[in-house]
Amino acid sequence: MSELTNVRTPRVKAARRLTKRSFREQDRRFLAEGPQAVREALRLPDVTVELFATAEAEVRHAELVEEARLQGATVHRASGEVMAELAQTVTPQGVVAICRFVHVPLTDAVTADARLVAVLAHVRDPGNAGTVLRTADAAGADSVVFTDASVDPYNGKCVRASAGSLFHLPVVIGSPVPQAVQHLKDSGLRVLAADGSGKRTLDEVELGGPTAWVFGNEAWGLPEEVLELCDEVVRVPIYGQAESLNLATAAAVCLYASARAQRQASGRA
Amino acid sequence: MSELTNVRTPRVKAARRLTKRSFREQDRRFLAEGPQAVREALRLPDVTVELFATAEAEVRHAELVEEARLQGATVHRASGEVMAELAQTVTPQGVVAICRFVHVPLTDAVTADARLVAVLAHVRDPGNAGTVLRTADAAGADSVVFTDASVDPYNGKCVRASAGSLFHLPVVIGSPVPQAVQHLKDSGLRVLAADGSGKRTLDEVELGGPTAWVFGNEAWGLPEEVLELCDEVVRVPIYGQAESLNLATAAAVCLYASARAQRQASGRA
Repeated sequence: MSELTNVRTPRVKAARRLTKRSFREQDRRFLAEGPQAVREALRLPDVTVELFATAEAEVRHAELVEEARLQGATVHRASGEVMAELAQTVTPQGVVAICRFVHVPLTDAVTADARLVAVLAHVRDPGNAGTVLRTADAAGADSVVFTDASVDPYNGKCVRASAGSLFHLPVVIGSPVPQAVQHLKDSGLRVLAADGSGKRTLDEVELGGPTAWVFGNEAWGLPEEVLELCDEVVRVPIYGQAESLNLATAAAVCLYASARAQRQASGRA
Repeated sequence: MSELTNVRTPRVKAARRLTKRSFREQDRRFLAEGPQAVREALRLPDVTVELFATAEAEVRHAELVEEARLQGATVHRASGEVMAELAQTVTPQGVVAICRFVHVPLTDAVTADARLVAVLAHVRDPGNAGTVLRTADAAGADSVVFTDASVDPYNGKCVRASAGSLFHLPVVIGSPVPQAVQHLKDSGLRVLAADGSGKRTLDEVELGGPTAWVFGNEAWGLPEEVLELCDEVVRVPIYGQAESLNLATAAAVCLYASARAQRQASGRA
């Protein structure tokens, strides 16, 4: 296999442009970087289109290269310079995959069976969004909805922060908030806005039933019109002097409180 | 007031060097950046030594400048260039304070009254450490212990991520882990290591009593010798396909589970 050494070759340029949202949307593809993300991508059928690996990574992650070939993906050996061009981290781990979009329609992701759903309503930081996605996965959520006012889950930082979770559970993108909330309600979920303005705290609300949590912006939370759409606004209690929690930790506390209460309600705790 | 415009003046250089740990330790001072951190520093007596503010920030945050002067701190007007030299963020918010160290001895921070303590045993990322500090404050922890193998809490990123919490609750730095764990036990706290290797999950452990949580490294958790020192190793349950939670979110789930259980046990829930 010949090695791609020139960052100006069409293959490298076609991959590199996927670091930009507009090109991702045009090509309906995105980059998954690092062995963990690539491994999780390869667990899904028909997702991995191309794999770039350095000679060193070909040896270290031989099973990934093998699996990519088995799935019919095109495997390229990439020079360190080409890898640095494709990777978005300071110390690239030697593998980057071009993946097909994995999101699904809202009506497929959220059905009447859903018990726990996370909605990112105005989350702007891709690292935070990826962390919430990872936490929702860990807490056993059925799906995660990125509304049209939130960051793109295919952003490289979000993919990395999700630590593979982007490939684990159904993800919805681009839903307008009112449409998402209505569909969640129609599917039998109680829709709770997580916001510091809530009258009741997490500990005062019954969480045993099917629940969707709506998380807002890192700095200013959720706008009034979103709060009004939800069944209730609930706040994470602050027992010390901190003004607030950061978004990803607040989401972790909410999602795990729901997971625990649902397991207790169903006798699985 | 004359404006500091030259980044090479002794005052600016003396402040700038506090971005390095060795100089912080030599001077026993650190930098608090942004209006939120400065406001919280000013709530404590004898902490703020100097304040640098741009002309614009002097107007916007006049109350901070006034309070600093009342406390006898030296206030400097700083040019944008000087502020850029002192601030460690891409978009500086115009105020930076030189503060005296605020940490306290372990025996002052953890007494027989303590109900909830967070221990950062091998946390290396300052952003994570600051987030855990903020979360511990929010969850009503009595104190936070940074052991000698953890990041410096006076690191600029940690101060920022703590969102003022560094000034809210007693913080201990540099304790060797065995000494910290022994003192926590002697103070009547049950010492729980948060680690994926735990046999029991958070939901299976009685958390109503005084508890110290020990958090480990972002990548590899806690070493065997630390696990053995603790009363029990407890894991956050993973209900989905995620391999793990990130450190700050795991800490949030543990600390809030303790806060809830303690309040339920004491009838305050």
